[in-house]
Amino acid sequence: MTQQMTALATVITPEELLEHWQGHRRLTRKVIEAYPETELFTFSVGGMRPFSELVLEMINMGNPGIDGIVSGQWPAWGAQETKSAPQTKEALLYMWDELTEKLNRLWPEIKPERFHEVDLAFGQWEGTIQFLLFYFIDNEIHHRAQGFVYLRALGIEPPAFWDRS
Amino acid sequence: MTQQMTALATVITPEELLEHWQGHRRLTRKVIEAYPETELFTFSVGGMRPFSELVLEMINMGNPGIDGIVSGQWPAWGAQETKSAPQTKEALLYMWDELTEKLNRLWPEIKPERFHEVDLAFGQWEGTIQFLLFYFIDNEIHHRAQGFVYLRALGIEPPAFWDRS
Repeated sequence: MTQQMTALATVITPEELLEHWQGHRRLTRKVIEAYPETELFTFSVGGMRPFSELVLEMINMGNPGIDGIVSGQWPAWGAQETKSAPQTKEALLYMWDELTEKLNRLWPEIKPERFHEVDLAFGQWEGTIQFLLFYFIDNEIHHRAQGFVYLRALGIEPPAFWDRS
Repeated sequence: MTQQMTALATVITPEELLEHWQGHRRLTRKVIEAYPETELFTFSVGGMRPFSELVLEMINMGNPGIDGIVSGQWPAWGAQETKSAPQTKEALLYMWDELTEKLNRLWPEIKPERFHEVDLAFGQWEGTIQFLLFYFIDNEIHHRAQGFVYLRALGIEPPAFWDRS
């Protein structure tokens, strides 16, 4: 009874939060796929970064991010950027899918009390783990929406925002 | 002890979720303010809606939305749209601020077990209340990011994404 009441009084469970993130990530993957090969790496509006660079930022946040969330060990922000960036849509999608599997694999290692521990992400952003996780997800929604506008400006219909399948 | 453990094992509390939403809403308000009066209602990229219409969508989702979340009573989607739309930035900000206060006022009425009840929002979207709330917030992040791109295309620096003050 107590356990059931606790579950019922929870806003979102860890499993639901992972599904929330992976649902958004499935949509972002569809947006990457919707791009023509060249424009993915070159096109932008208003002097902003091309979509490939925004996607790389999502990966460079989430990939060391999930390690930091599980272990408390964070590399400095930007440390990933010394690695060579993918030059093709296929290579970018490969990195994307690797992170999808990594998130599913490591997520169960996040201890329940961890979500309210305060940490210094990437050596510079302080917040509770739940705050940092929502920051990663919201940053992805924000930059993906830029990608939607670029697609429209290219005359390409983006995938539906509500479709997380 | 049990209460403390429950709090610690919670991903995000109801109070934190309200602050999460209101933090995003403070940023959206700054984006509205950053627009020149005319372009707020007329400018767009790629044939999309001007930012004022996107902001009205956020209000038309959140305003009857919080009533539905608290009471289970939902108007049909679009029922709000018969009301006359604001014609000035000041009028739009006035509607925005009314909703800010309404959310703060009604939020404590959401019963803890409500977040996992399934409801049919606006008579057509089925999901748990937590799912619907995150949909409202994510939809705002998504459309606000369009507003960021429009501002850049107008040569205007948008507010910082991370600043929710």
